[in-house]
Amino acid sequence: MKSRLLQHINSSQDLKKLSKENLPVLAKELREFIIDIVSAKEGHLGASLGVVELTIALHYYFNTPEDLLVWDVGHQAYGHKILTGRRDVFETNRKLNGLSGFPKREESEYDTFGVGHSSTSISAALGMAIASKLNGNITKKHIAVIGDASIASGMAFEGLNHAGVTKANLWVILNDNAIGIDPSVGALKEYLSKSKIGVKSKQHNMIEALNFHYSGPIDGHDFEAILEAFKQLEKVEGPKFLHIITKKGKGLQQAEENQVVYHAPGKFDKITGELLPKNNKNLPPKFQDVFGLTLVELAKQNKDIIGITPAMPTGSSLKFMMSEFPDRAFDVGIAEQHAVTLAAGMATQGKIVFCTIYSTFLQRAYDQVIHDVALQNLPVIFCIDRAGLVGEDGATHHGVFDIAYLRSIPNLMIATPANEVELRNLLYTASLGLSNPIAIRYPRGRGSIINWQNDFKKVAIGKGKLLKTGTKVAIISIGTIKTEVEKAISLLDHTEKVAHYDLGFIKPLDKKLLTDIFKQYSTIFTIEDGVISGGGGEAIVSFAQQHQFTSTVVNLGIPDKFIEQGSTEELREIAGISANKIVEKIREYISL
Amino acid sequence: MKSRLLQHINSSQDLKKLSKENLPVLAKELREFIIDIVSAKEGHLGASLGVVELTIALHYYFNTPEDLLVWDVGHQAYGHKILTGRRDVFETNRKLNGLSGFPKREESEYDTFGVGHSSTSISAALGMAIASKLNGNITKKHIAVIGDASIASGMAFEGLNHAGVTKANLWVILNDNAIGIDPSVGALKEYLSKSKIGVKSKQHNMIEALNFHYSGPIDGHDFEAILEAFKQLEKVEGPKFLHIITKKGKGLQQAEENQVVYHAPGKFDKITGELLPKNNKNLPPKFQDVFGLTLVELAKQNKDIIGITPAMPTGSSLKFMMSEFPDRAFDVGIAEQHAVTLAAGMATQGKIVFCTIYSTFLQRAYDQVIHDVALQNLPVIFCIDRAGLVGEDGATHHGVFDIAYLRSIPNLMIATPANEVELRNLLYTASLGLSNPIAIRYPRGRGSIINWQNDFKKVAIGKGKLLKTGTKVAIISIGTIKTEVEKAISLLDHTEKVAHYDLGFIKPLDKKLLTDIFKQYSTIFTIEDGVISGGGGEAIVSFAQQHQFTSTVVNLGIPDKFIEQGSTEELREIAGISANKIVEKIREYISL
Repeated sequence: MKSRLLQHINSSQDLKKLSKENLPVLAKELREFIIDIVSAKEGHLGASLGVVELTIALHYYFNTPEDLLVWDVGHQAYGHKILTGRRDVFETNRKLNGLSGFPKREESEYDTFGVGHSSTSISAALGMAIASKLNGNITKKHIAVIGDASIASGMAFEGLNHAGVTKANLWVILNDNAIGIDPSVGALKEYLSKSKIGVKSKQHNMIEALNFHYSGPIDGHDFEAILEAFKQLEKVEGPKFLHIITKKGKGLQQAEENQVVYHAPGKFDKITGELLPKNNKNLPPKFQDVFGLTLVELAKQNKDIIGITPAMPTGSSLKFMMSEFPDRAFDVGIAEQHAVTLAAGMATQGKIVFCTIYSTFLQRAYDQVIHDVALQNLPVIFCIDRAGLVGEDGATHHGVFDIAYLRSIPNLMIATPANEVELRNLLYTASLGLSNPIAIRYPRGRGSIINWQNDFKKVAIGKGKLLKTGTKVAIISIGTIKTEVEKAISLLDHTEKVAHYDLGFIKPLDKKLLTDIFKQYSTIFTIEDGVISGGGGEAIVSFAQQHQFTSTVVNLGIPDKFIEQGSTEELREIAGISANKIVEKIREYISL
Repeated sequence: MKSRLLQHINSSQDLKKLSKENLPVLAKELREFIIDIVSAKEGHLGASLGVVELTIALHYYFNTPEDLLVWDVGHQAYGHKILTGRRDVFETNRKLNGLSGFPKREESEYDTFGVGHSSTSISAALGMAIASKLNGNITKKHIAVIGDASIASGMAFEGLNHAGVTKANLWVILNDNAIGIDPSVGALKEYLSKSKIGVKSKQHNMIEALNFHYSGPIDGHDFEAILEAFKQLEKVEGPKFLHIITKKGKGLQQAEENQVVYHAPGKFDKITGELLPKNNKNLPPKFQDVFGLTLVELAKQNKDIIGITPAMPTGSSLKFMMSEFPDRAFDVGIAEQHAVTLAAGMATQGKIVFCTIYSTFLQRAYDQVIHDVALQNLPVIFCIDRAGLVGEDGATHHGVFDIAYLRSIPNLMIATPANEVELRNLLYTASLGLSNPIAIRYPRGRGSIINWQNDFKKVAIGKGKLLKTGTKVAIISIGTIKTEVEKAISLLDHTEKVAHYDLGFIKPLDKKLLTDIFKQYSTIFTIEDGVISGGGGEAIVSFAQQHQFTSTVVNLGIPDKFIEQGSTEELREIAGISANKIVEKIREYISL
């Protein structure tokens, strides 16, 4: 009943049949629909609520999917999906075999470009616009919708800088709500925050300096204003920029008031907006909190300790240090490249810098890790968060490449703690000063040890360990996938035959331990929650080959394909690194 | 004689003993010194000539090395090196065991941050400045000198955006000469080019919008103006920005008039400036020209073909297509991230995009290759230039990581042509349309085949080949290192015992060929001009392990350390992949 209009909208064409007067009604319905589903099924809430009017206006005004619409990041694209034929399957959002949480080309012709990482939309839309022009189509429109946190990232600037010297039919719509996942930071944000709706001021100079036609700022919740702005901009040739101001979480009071929490709030009461209580008592801690809280402890003891996050203070738990030591903990915005080289600069002056970056986002700073940190052998400490499979965020966000892409970098050490206590002690060890940079990788979510805040113990760099003796085969696990291996062993009939080792470090490799293992076992399994190709298991195979060990080695890990979204458990099964799959694999080689 | 003043300058302190009136004299001497050495020993010329006055002024005014000076890229730092104790060894510049062509921390305390890749200086200097402030030192100055091509790169923007919300004692000096290696491009460049010396205009708004105090533009060849600007800026708290205008190649007429050629002109007559004639007749072509000229041929036949380079039209030889098809060939500036995602956007619209990027710079766009191209399986063609050891540019520029960092990316094919004809035919094959993205890697410099412009032949994807039969051992070479292997084989006493295979593709691997090789040979050598760790040889070892082949495999390639500068021949020797070293290695295993 309540979705009187929405239930008939499956395309941009359907939308165009509505009168303008009906659009606010549809907006209300769309908000309710999003709240309805996200409250029960979880997902990203605030961003999509904030762009309900913009989303409707875009598909109402433009000739989508002929006109090409690119959403930056895509957290905000739920409304877009619901309006373009995916309403009835939207409850599968972020689930295995369901809709992706982000726009995705395979899913719909309305999803013109797959997104997930930030700040790609201008480059992608510009590429499309140049292609259209070369194809002789100058009326086709190409629209990038980008938030104020994303536009401050270097890549977006590169796109604007190029677009400004083209005559491409490119529309950049800045969705300015002063927040990404956490509140936006930086000089550009301060600049934008001076903007006032309806006041055409000096504020637009910066965009016009880049040869864009600037328009705005306008109220992004006012259909009349948006549609009129579109109409006016249609008359402008070349790249144009529309600055709209919106409120993240619009339409749900709690989401408007607690924008960080309601970015992805988990389950909540759809009427009151109250979060459903989570029973976190007696649960092991999140690895993120182990990082964040331990760092505060260490920072209290050593004033040279510094923390850096590119735009993830809440997600990474650096927020604890930011609140305790605001002078020494930095959120630099969506600027991974800058974050890493900033850390390198600080390290030259003797600072002990903990730079926490999600594994998948460290891909953005690969060159800086090589060129600015490792080449100069500056002892920056990379805390690589969300390593391994991340679950519902899917293919764009799994942190499965890091071991492979870091392993080939000289000077860089790579540690793979197997639990919270190991992570804590590694952080402590690194804080004492290292001769080399180090990457410490750990997964999203909770560990397994409730009482983790023990006294610090120094970790021996480059040492693995025997966890369990055995007689027939050895399993070497890399990092927290250890717990799946333990489960797997417990499922075997002859657990006594299986030895289990924790590799501890990918670099340096524990050559003594590996030598022992290879001398003792003719069949060895390696397991990691990262890609097999180039990963830690291959490092072990390479070690064996160099030393002419002849044991059979079987590498388990992420196969050579992109893994989509689902629960981490489901995805481990698909990737072949769940306890069950480990058992199956072992039994291919030996009856146990 | 002619270096009357210069011969006494070994430090910032020495410089400060000079009267202001003597500075132009010193500038003349420094220019002559640079020209003298670069004309005979080769190196980068134009950039350093352009900043002679700035360099002297910086060390004259600031308390270096206490005040921390960071040169962006570092092509322009020859004068800096000569004035700070390295005059008498400057003739070893870019030579094996000599001075690095770029600032380098190990070399001098004046080199506060190692550079080579562009746009790192603001982040690094900001890191230092924040560290100094935390250390209680607020008078220490931190100066980033950055060119107008480099400041347009996204990373520089990220640094500015952060700096603007700090109170760091950071000085950003924009050396605006309207050119990087090739002329600068983009909207920011157009914006800057409106600047006029001495006219304080609206032009500074963009920098002030980022919370910097802006000063300039001033004449960067006028000591009085520079020193006065420093003095005025000293009074300003927080981040400050000085815009100076210089002429690249200043003081050598030809270098001023032909700035692209005289960026790194090779040997020339130090009096007349005339380039010394090179005898290029009957030499095989540069791989770059094979790429550039072949692309023009292909583009003539297919209007959907597009070329993209991030700021290397001359170096990559995309200039040929840019001149023939200016609408379809794009120099996007120092913007590797944008270049890759722009290519992806174009590919969604059916364009066949050849994106040429130096191997070492593709590290800047690693995430975009994964997230925007490979994940969406868009058939972008990456032409990876300067793969392998690059010689005199040294550790910052060797293209040795690419196979390792690309090999773990699903969907992406990796081709390693062994000569110009294979490169040409791969470009042709890719232009016909592929189901997947592909990376085609080739080295800097000349190949081995003079008559390379033959009729196109389609290449079988994923196929290697037998080059020479043998009876005892097999060598699998990856790419153009093939020629070293051929030399090595010719040096052996029993050449008939050695088989030689060309792998052709790292991905997909030629499993049939590898199976044949492993069945036939018990000792197999793999050779590549890339890192061993995670590289192509390890892919072969992993293949063998998966199929339980027991042959001994020996991987030759770049060991796990950074390789410094020298001639490519010298560096191959050091890395262990020269013909001699290959022979030595073979003889460790078998008497041949």
